[in-house]
Amino acid sequence: MTSTLILASSSEVRARLLRNAGLVIETATARVDEEAVRRALTAEEATPRDVADTLAEMKARRISDRYPGKLVLGCDQVLDCRGTIFAKPETPDQAESQLRALSDRTHRLLSAAVVLKDGEPLWRHVGEVRLTMRRISESYLPDYVARNWESIRHSVGAYKLEEEGVRLFSRIEGDYFTILGLPLIELLTWLGIRGDIAT
Amino acid sequence: MTSTLILASSSEVRARLLRNAGLVIETATARVDEEAVRRALTAEEATPRDVADTLAEMKARRISDRYPGKLVLGCDQVLDCRGTIFAKPETPDQAESQLRALSDRTHRLLSAAVVLKDGEPLWRHVGEVRLTMRRISESYLPDYVARNWESIRHSVGAYKLEEEGVRLFSRIEGDYFTILGLPLIELLTWLGIRGDIAT
Repeated sequence: MTSTLILASSSEVRARLLRNAGLVIETATARVDEEAVRRALTAEEATPRDVADTLAEMKARRISDRYPGKLVLGCDQVLDCRGTIFAKPETPDQAESQLRALSDRTHRLLSAAVVLKDGEPLWRHVGEVRLTMRRISESYLPDYVARNWESIRHSVGAYKLEEEGVRLFSRIEGDYFTILGLPLIELLTWLGIRGDIAT
Repeated sequence: MTSTLILASSSEVRARLLRNAGLVIETATARVDEEAVRRALTAEEATPRDVADTLAEMKARRISDRYPGKLVLGCDQVLDCRGTIFAKPETPDQAESQLRALSDRTHRLLSAAVVLKDGEPLWRHVGEVRLTMRRISESYLPDYVARNWESIRHSVGAYKLEEEGVRLFSRIEGDYFTILGLPLIELLTWLGIRGDIAT
């Protein structure tokens, strides 16, 4: 079967979401120095939303040349807490301080998706979710990070809601697909209107 | 390790949600003629919310005697579309007519959870999610049901959002755990306040 989409990402979660929805996809890894781009854009006072959108497009663009005539999907997720953008933690200590900064506060996750075809952007969307963390106790925090480090090191904000991280939250507003890093409903709606998938 | 909770349900999804959150649980199947209870309560003009809450408590109660001193969790989910309660479809034809009735409309999923200890209710919550289906085409509907029957026959409303069913929706308001049948965040908050789990 011909694939509907090329996913310009090595994210297993995003690939799984698309495949679970019944799409046939291929994946291709886009090499982008995300941290450098994020820093450069932030220095230019880009909003968190613009940062996510720009990175998503950049990733799709890196791949698009290799797949003429194909839809190429780039994605990015940004965590914004009171104007500060969080990246993936590099050490357990960094994970602890990220979680301390998020504790007892509401933050936003912005999940951007951009579809290119032959280098032209055909569709883009930034989904937004608001998550409120409870006050995390100092006795729990180091244990949480130690137990979950191998998993949370791959997550901005140092938590995974689909694992023990759910315990950190008191409130979630927005859809789960956007939390996982892909505004899936909006993407499927667009693919359905185009006639690329049956709905 | 001693278990924190006895889950009075054979639902694999609910057991997985609790275990993913790091809880140690046991499961025990509660035999309740749900369809008969639903019919009886509806005849007495109980609200969909009351039906879900009553069934959740009933399931926990069936198990509670066997586990003195333990927290026993009962759960139920009710789908309400314009005052009509939907059950699990018994045949593919029934699944098709359920989906036809939900197409192009917003419905509610009510996920009730009740915790008993020694037969006394200690905590209860009914979570609510609102889901809007797009207009499902008559060409897609029978294919969807045929492809997914073995999975959707276990779901009220004949869809699974974590599978191809996500294609049926244009909007989701509320949290994913409640969609899957358990108001997990609220339950974990309560267990944390009690000191039964670390947070």
